[in-house]
Amino acid sequence: MANPSKTLFSGLRILDLTRAVAGPTCTRMFSELGADVIKVEAFPEGDLTRQVSKIRNERSLYFVQQNLGKKSLCVDLRNPKGLQLVKDLVPLVDVVVQNFKPGVMASMGMAYDDLKELKQDIILCSISSLGQTGSLAEKPGYDMIAQSYAGVTSMVGDPDDAPCFPQLAIGDVSTGVMGAFSVLAALYHRDRTGEGQHLDVSILDTYYHSHEASVHQYSGSNGKIEPNRTGRHMNYLAPAGVFRANGGYITIMSFLHHWKDLCAAMDRPELAEDERLGNDEGRLENLDEVIELIESWLQNFPDRDTAMDKLDEFGVPAGPVLTIAETVAHPHLRERGTVRTIDDRIAGKFEIPGLPPKFSKFPDLPEFDAPTLGEHNEEIITNILGRSDDELAELRNAGILKEKNI
Amino acid sequence: MANPSKTLFSGLRILDLTRAVAGPTCTRMFSELGADVIKVEAFPEGDLTRQVSKIRNERSLYFVQQNLGKKSLCVDLRNPKGLQLVKDLVPLVDVVVQNFKPGVMASMGMAYDDLKELKQDIILCSISSLGQTGSLAEKPGYDMIAQSYAGVTSMVGDPDDAPCFPQLAIGDVSTGVMGAFSVLAALYHRDRTGEGQHLDVSILDTYYHSHEASVHQYSGSNGKIEPNRTGRHMNYLAPAGVFRANGGYITIMSFLHHWKDLCAAMDRPELAEDERLGNDEGRLENLDEVIELIESWLQNFPDRDTAMDKLDEFGVPAGPVLTIAETVAHPHLRERGTVRTIDDRIAGKFEIPGLPPKFSKFPDLPEFDAPTLGEHNEEIITNILGRSDDELAELRNAGILKEKNI
Repeated sequence: MANPSKTLFSGLRILDLTRAVAGPTCTRMFSELGADVIKVEAFPEGDLTRQVSKIRNERSLYFVQQNLGKKSLCVDLRNPKGLQLVKDLVPLVDVVVQNFKPGVMASMGMAYDDLKELKQDIILCSISSLGQTGSLAEKPGYDMIAQSYAGVTSMVGDPDDAPCFPQLAIGDVSTGVMGAFSVLAALYHRDRTGEGQHLDVSILDTYYHSHEASVHQYSGSNGKIEPNRTGRHMNYLAPAGVFRANGGYITIMSFLHHWKDLCAAMDRPELAEDERLGNDEGRLENLDEVIELIESWLQNFPDRDTAMDKLDEFGVPAGPVLTIAETVAHPHLRERGTVRTIDDRIAGKFEIPGLPPKFSKFPDLPEFDAPTLGEHNEEIITNILGRSDDELAELRNAGILKEKNI
Repeated sequence: MANPSKTLFSGLRILDLTRAVAGPTCTRMFSELGADVIKVEAFPEGDLTRQVSKIRNERSLYFVQQNLGKKSLCVDLRNPKGLQLVKDLVPLVDVVVQNFKPGVMASMGMAYDDLKELKQDIILCSISSLGQTGSLAEKPGYDMIAQSYAGVTSMVGDPDDAPCFPQLAIGDVSTGVMGAFSVLAALYHRDRTGEGQHLDVSILDTYYHSHEASVHQYSGSNGKIEPNRTGRHMNYLAPAGVFRANGGYITIMSFLHHWKDLCAAMDRPELAEDERLGNDEGRLENLDEVIELIESWLQNFPDRDTAMDKLDEFGVPAGPVLTIAETVAHPHLRERGTVRTIDDRIAGKFEIPGLPPKFSKFPDLPEFDAPTLGEHNEEIITNILGRSDDELAELRNAGILKEKNI
């Protein structure tokens, strides 16, 4: 157990009514930095991620990854006494985070105004796919659906074919982080004014925010520029894209002033001043030729990594397209804790991504466990809510609380 | 000008030594919520984004989007007097954010330890491509290079072909937000302990964090599971992917219990119980047939949106793959402020993505301007640094400060 005085968020208490990815990512940003996060799990099986992805010794590695350092309260929310337990926790926490479908919190009598009556300065962070308001709010949502509505999917893949989608939950995760930002902003405001508030954070809005250029390019040109996906090469800088090497791929970004470095690496210095290929405009016009030029040069190397060595030697901005297997083994990623090894008490050792920000005051994160289902029922009911052992026994006997050693 | 008492971050002051996307996204999260952000721009042309993307009336819409609500100080950092001005600002701010290449701040005498001597509780947030430490730290970096090292690029595109990359700076932007989270966490810590600290936030770490399953699947299976890109359809749930409709594409996520709703929409209720296609396993085994079934049904509709209406009617989780043009016009996105209209004093009206979190205490963000180059030189030199008008004139005459009405 971490020494609470040695963590960044010591003393901060969060009631976590989330499941799956986006919501748990938000609360995980706090639990990994030492906040007291009470995760309420749905009766009787708990968070659905306990059943998915890789399972070892009956333990879901997915659940462990998303729920490090949290406490689990497994309670029947359909039972009024169970729901009351959760409501009784509200006055004892700083923040409530939830990612139910919009409307569900209100149906349980836990809309923001209800919570405010329980605690005047409560902060409620509502995370959803398409937002708490607007004509689409009630639609069933997943990362990929929000991604499609955000115009992100349309920007991925070959322009002559149907779009692809990234095989990772980048929208879910970045929305969780956006939620964590908004919670901290609200705490900043509460510290200065005593006021709480309701935060509405969606995957759609978060994805849309990532269009660093397309939206203003389209609207600012009155529709003359119609941004679209461009496959594996950029369409306004060249060369900038993914290139085939022996046994793998390399991303090379040697546009503008970087071109001369690539020419030097290829031992073709004359191309730096070439009439046709000496500038980005010419290279974009002759992109197929440029790609062919670079890819045939890459064929001179026995493998991707020897080609990378040559590019590095000449300071060409480039990187190998690593597979997941290669990332897990990479010294830079391991050294920085980008890859983190977990030693779960049930599932054993395995790797997950580390917490991205590195805090100089907290160079090492504590070794946190993910909870078993209802592991902290007793602690929460007796220590935090102050109920008697008899009441605890009653709640257990009535089947309102559930525990499972997994 | 916003009434400072009505913004969330009133009174918070940030020294912004960033350019391009990731850094400016971080400081923009604060300036849009009312913090006093002093952006130091490189002499003599300022942030490179003033020259790129769509330009209107000589004004870069890209620069406007990334720098709303900031103040511009354009100063020659190569001149010792110019650099001293920036150092003199350090004791007057709460936070310094920078995204120079690792090592540059130290070479200017502005490493964290230097800043700490200027202000004991300073918070320094360093944003980079591959991190401040580790064997790759010194490499030239771009979003796509960090993305490649993070194993993200390998997860995008058709598995039988070279990977694609998303045509938007999703890593830059999410790293900026990660930086903003870390700054707020450090402010939380400072408020409680009086201590500052140094934050190391990278695009590589942020991208890697988005692997919600692949890293533990690979390592937890001892390498038996090798996660890879899957084109436009998921490989462990079905149907879940991008489907061709007339004149466009639709993302349909009707796996598991959603399958029966799609069967009902297609008026093929018998398929819900079909021996081969009634469960995800069977549908994955016969994925080509499932795709063909759905795509031929979609051909019965004159266009994508009439097909979407039918899917919505039956509660099938689905969304149209909107183009950028369609997102800008979409009522839901406009209503929520996901699409925000800017009325720039120089460039006029155009659209950009809005700030994703919606704060109930601040339902409307102030109308912020982006600064012209060096617009706030005078205000910063005289009001904030307290120099005399004579000294200001001297700095201008010596060419240490620069201004431009664009």
